[in-house]
Amino acid sequence: MTAKKTTKVAVIGASGYAGEELVRLLLKHPSADLVAVTSRQSAGRKLSEVFPRFGHAAKAESLKFINPEAEEIGKLADFIFLALPHGVSAETGARLIRDGKRVIDLSADFRIRDPRTYAEFYGKEHPAPDLLKQAVYGLPELHRDQIRVAQLVACPGCYPTSILLPLLPLLRAKAIDPKRIMVASLSGVTGAGRKIEADYLFAECNESLRPYGVPKHRHLGEIEQELSAAVGEKIIVQFTPHLVPVSRGIISTIYADLNEAVDSAAIGKIFESAHGNEPFVRLLPEERLPDTKNVVDTNFIDVGWRLDPRTKRVIVMSAIDNLTKGTSGQAMQCFNLMCGDDETAGLL
Amino acid sequence: MTAKKTTKVAVIGASGYAGEELVRLLLKHPSADLVAVTSRQSAGRKLSEVFPRFGHAAKAESLKFINPEAEEIGKLADFIFLALPHGVSAETGARLIRDGKRVIDLSADFRIRDPRTYAEFYGKEHPAPDLLKQAVYGLPELHRDQIRVAQLVACPGCYPTSILLPLLPLLRAKAIDPKRIMVASLSGVTGAGRKIEADYLFAECNESLRPYGVPKHRHLGEIEQELSAAVGEKIIVQFTPHLVPVSRGIISTIYADLNEAVDSAAIGKIFESAHGNEPFVRLLPEERLPDTKNVVDTNFIDVGWRLDPRTKRVIVMSAIDNLTKGTSGQAMQCFNLMCGDDETAGLL
Amino acid sequence: MTAKKTTKVAVIGASGYAGEELVRLLLKHPSADLVAVTSRQSAGRKLSEVFPRFGHAAKAESLKFINPEAEEIGKLADFIFLALPHGVSAETGARLIRDGKRVIDLSADFRIRDPRTYAEFYGKEHPAPDLLKQAVYGLPELHRDQIRVAQLVACPGCYPTSILLPLLPLLRAKAIDPKRIMVASLSGVTGAGRKIEADYLFAECNESLRPYGVPKHRHLGEIEQELSAAVGEKIIVQFTPHLVPVSRGIISTIYADLNEAVDSAAIGKIFESAHGNEPFVRLLPEERLPDTKNVVDTNFIDVGWRLDPRTKRVIVMSAIDNLTKGTSGQAMQCFNLMCGDDETAGLL
Amino acid sequence: MTAKKTTKVAVIGASGYAGEELVRLLLKHPSADLVAVTSRQSAGRKLSEVFPRFGHAAKAESLKFINPEAEEIGKLADFIFLALPHGVSAETGARLIRDGKRVIDLSADFRIRDPRTYAEFYGKEHPAPDLLKQAVYGLPELHRDQIRVAQLVACPGCYPTSILLPLLPLLRAKAIDPKRIMVASLSGVTGAGRKIEADYLFAECNESLRPYGVPKHRHLGEIEQELSAAVGEKIIVQFTPHLVPVSRGIISTIYADLNEAVDSAAIGKIFESAHGNEPFVRLLPEERLPDTKNVVDTNFIDVGWRLDPRTKRVIVMSAIDNLTKGTSGQAMQCFNLMCGDDETAGLL
Repeated sequence: MTAKKTTKVAVIGASGYAGEELVRLLLKHPSADLVAVTSRQSAGRKLSEVFPRFGHAAKAESLKFINPEAEEIGKLADFIFLALPHGVSAETGARLIRDGKRVIDLSADFRIRDPRTYAEFYGKEHPAPDLLKQAVYGLPELHRDQIRVAQLVACPGCYPTSILLPLLPLLRAKAIDPKRIMVASLSGVTGAGRKIEADYLFAECNESLRPYGVPKHRHLGEIEQELSAAVGEKIIVQFTPHLVPVSRGIISTIYADLNEAVDSAAIGKIFESAHGNEPFVRLLPEERLPDTKNVVDTNFIDVGWRLDPRTKRVIVMSAIDNLTKGTSGQAMQCFNLMCGDDETAGLL
Repeated sequence: MTAKKTTKVAVIGASGYAGEELVRLLLKHPSADLVAVTSRQSAGRKLSEVFPRFGHAAKAESLKFINPEAEEIGKLADFIFLALPHGVSAETGARLIRDGKRVIDLSADFRIRDPRTYAEFYGKEHPAPDLLKQAVYGLPELHRDQIRVAQLVACPGCYPTSILLPLLPLLRAKAIDPKRIMVASLSGVTGAGRKIEADYLFAECNESLRPYGVPKHRHLGEIEQELSAAVGEKIIVQFTPHLVPVSRGIISTIYADLNEAVDSAAIGKIFESAHGNEPFVRLLPEERLPDTKNVVDTNFIDVGWRLDPRTKRVIVMSAIDNLTKGTSGQAMQCFNLMCGDDETAGLL
Repeated sequence: MTAKKTTKVAVIGASGYAGEELVRLLLKHPSADLVAVTSRQSAGRKLSEVFPRFGHAAKAESLKFINPEAEEIGKLADFIFLALPHGVSAETGARLIRDGKRVIDLSADFRIRDPRTYAEFYGKEHPAPDLLKQAVYGLPELHRDQIRVAQLVACPGCYPTSILLPLLPLLRAKAIDPKRIMVASLSGVTGAGRKIEADYLFAECNESLRPYGVPKHRHLGEIEQELSAAVGEKIIVQFTPHLVPVSRGIISTIYADLNEAVDSAAIGKIFESAHGNEPFVRLLPEERLPDTKNVVDTNFIDVGWRLDPRTKRVIVMSAIDNLTKGTSGQAMQCFNLMCGDDETAGLL
Repeated sequence: MTAKKTTKVAVIGASGYAGEELVRLLLKHPSADLVAVTSRQSAGRKLSEVFPRFGHAAKAESLKFINPEAEEIGKLADFIFLALPHGVSAETGARLIRDGKRVIDLSADFRIRDPRTYAEFYGKEHPAPDLLKQAVYGLPELHRDQIRVAQLVACPGCYPTSILLPLLPLLRAKAIDPKRIMVASLSGVTGAGRKIEADYLFAECNESLRPYGVPKHRHLGEIEQELSAAVGEKIIVQFTPHLVPVSRGIISTIYADLNEAVDSAAIGKIFESAHGNEPFVRLLPEERLPDTKNVVDTNFIDVGWRLDPRTKRVIVMSAIDNLTKGTSGQAMQCFNLMCGDDETAGLL
């Protein structure tokens, strides 16, 4: 029996929520070997000191945070997860990619293929436009084969994941009118990252419900890009996110006009055909609607739907954990594909 | 100086959340004299025993819950608030109305004018259809003059209040397409009433986000009735409520297609003209979006809006406290009108 | 009929949680006239802009935040509330007191009478030790008469209020052993102030329970000072605070060894005799224990107790709103006393 | 290579919170084979229907709830977990034990060795006193060897686990005075089980802090039994639990008088010697205090402590997840011991 092949990985920017979730998943992954974690403000501290919840793991005692610029990262690791803020990620990533590392970027920096769209949604020029072309959008259900062989994977945002997976099959099957899609999403507070700002203080979020980012949230860029690419025409989506007082979880409620002659059974078949064999998509039985508490701490997306005969619309509702299927779990799913592992390794 | 005239009031069904909020408001009202509270399961217990938070009020020590059928209610009180479950309310209400009492009903029993619509949304025949004609829908901003002289006022539900107040001005001004209105709402858990069911246990609601009542929530009946009446054509609304883990508060996010040549300034003028003098409607300045924490424990509705030039839609967002402007505060506002008091008495 | 005399007041440091709560109470106070609010970071902005919840009040539109050093404060106001951080408060306060203003300080700066105790608990020399002598500790139930005539009142902290009011009567009546008092307290997150630190982010506090400040929390200094003064001997208390995920509210659970021959009836009489006429102390009936939700947004303290025959101890439990009776409500109660108003004005 | 030996297990009473957590752990356990789940009210429904969060597991689709009395349980399973209410458990357990099954009971029914103590704390006679003698108290750190060979294991309650593990080493080392131990605990709402009662509704628990069960909570019986047995003298503990708004987690804060000459280093050595090799006890470094968010969803207990030189006491603080180390995780730990598996199997 041959020893299991392991991959040496580093997490750059491991002190945020996405980074912490990556570390949680990597510490129990069967073939990943976490060899470096970086954080500017935590450099020099042990992993277990910064994240006491990992205190039982031998590695949490032995690994110390280093600076993200440390040269040793390239020597230690073959595979890099970037969990850095937007903008910062592209610069660090560019260097590592040129050094031949395989990289999964959790920021938005490489998600947009067209530099003009990037500039439109992010308000500045892209720092490494040449790399945009080679980046693969890391939604395994959509780009599985390209992810397997990619050097650079740009992991989708949490809202896009919750919206693309339910919407794409309906669009491709031409079951709905692509012109009139509206989405209302609810997100837990970790969706904003570990930002130390007044808006995210406990007493400001607790017992508070608030829409934000209306009408043009940054994630719309990648949502519309992927939808448009799937159907070959420019799609514009109405999207309103809301901040709600849970730590983790997203609900996306999607409204679309049904095309003639599409009934509930047809919708069911479309979903079954698109996602029936997906390991992380759970299509809910007719009587059930999604609830984030069923997906929190998992990599699943739960998808339910109802037809409204009065309006001839379908309402599709999805639930994910914004830090798992919405960010770091999805990154691990991509990692598994890139390494030729079982896609679900370390994720069930 | 003459003594302030007081009105003797009873609250039937005072042990639920709406009843409790009514009692809170009545105990500090300048001209209401709370003379009876009823509750089947709490009969015989002091008000302060059932609601320790009112323990300081002399009345909370002296008043005991009585049975809702008690004959003395009619003798004690001239004015009745019904905070009973749907269906139960109509029967109790019918008797009191025939006895000449003025009644504000917080249930859905008298909100629907057409008994067929009632049967459609509530799944049974209306128990007192003759009274439907005389009932006034208790949204002061809409029916202020009728409320003043009504014997029977049917207080709107929490979702309808949060949706009608922002939508009606736009519809009346013909600023939006009445055919394509979509609403996503988020509600705190008291919106379900003090129902002792597994779904509303702390550990089932905490860290949970869930759509429900899709696609035809019961409140749609009254929403569509009032919208249709206002514009003289049948209006159908797409509506999806979500249960979120706060105790109090509703956000409604409304999407509507703008008619040609309506810009943001025009929307602002429409709202200003409709609600600029309303004591409980706060039109938010352009840079702000509503947040329930600004309205909780108050009778205000906060209304904000944004135009989306990409989709030619307006997104209107409102926030209320579901138990105050959404239920019991609105009932007090109606009470003030019916008694000829200052409309804001006891509510600021 | 003569016009009601009003007092012109300023709140220095009005953008924190204590300041916000003061503003809430002042806006509805019958005889206070809020003429100035200060905040370094919000200077120039309207009150309604910084605190949208006050948006309905005319004053919230007309008042703008000014800098705390602004000379006009002294000209505008006769009465000053200081809601500044510890250390900063003493300096600003000293100047205003010397200008003849009456001052209520909500910080810890003037609560400790002995400068050495201040240095012990706060780790530095007191910036205005001469003023310590004239400051009155602002617990009305304890120092009502001195507060009435004081120029400078030092409002107690939230933990001390929740501990002193239940403990003092038992100590004075010699019902318990002063040597062996232990306290465990639970506090909501606003107790820490509006501190923009990672520890107080929503996702760090939600679903988290944690002791802190063990074994020598800063509030112990004033707790022991007041207990010791009441019984004429040095008292040392064991105190452990815990941070729990509510916005507002404190529970203090106090354990004390009973002296011989003290039974439950005796304890009841002691509390009744001490607090029976206090407008803001509610002694709970025997079968009930305090619950913060009954006191939140009020100035009440609820006190319950149980004797343990197995250990011959009494367990006394109290509940307050840390921002009302624990801070700003208590300051208003002092203000009422200082102005000769009804002690409950604006607080019921 | 030989096939891994599996054990066929049933969970009786699987629809409560403890049962759900058992199912979660069993579904991922390497050698347990879940063959039956029972629930009176859910009989006939699939596991995935009652607990949608398990919807991905093949077994959650194939297993249906059966009635707890079903004869087939004995035929299907060799190993039984009882997650039934107190009182009910003993009767069901007695029958299965007599049938030769190995049983882990999560209720309180077999935790108390002396039937008189049972009657004192539970207010009725024990239904199967003969079985009390053979039951082993399922705290692995205390009774590891007896658990390995036991037929009947009585799993400790959540409070006892959080109190016994920190206290026992200090008592055995005679570092503290056994006469004067006081404990304040904070518990999340699942600690009460999935009880459908008004007290546990979201809006009654949210923004609420409340002591309860004062002064003689039922868990005291087993706490005092185990402490007394460990030191050979009758120990009485002062214990006050508090209900706080988190779903999962317990903090226990323990106060004890230090014996002469015991310093912080000595305490550290005592804990290290007792628990240094325990796989699920994490002794915190000096600067840190426990926080439930570090243990939620894990089987760890985090233990921290501080000495108070002013009072000569030690304050020991522990954190556990009440449903994992506090109930079902501990049961799995016992299961591993009973089956000769690695004690941590399925728990890391």
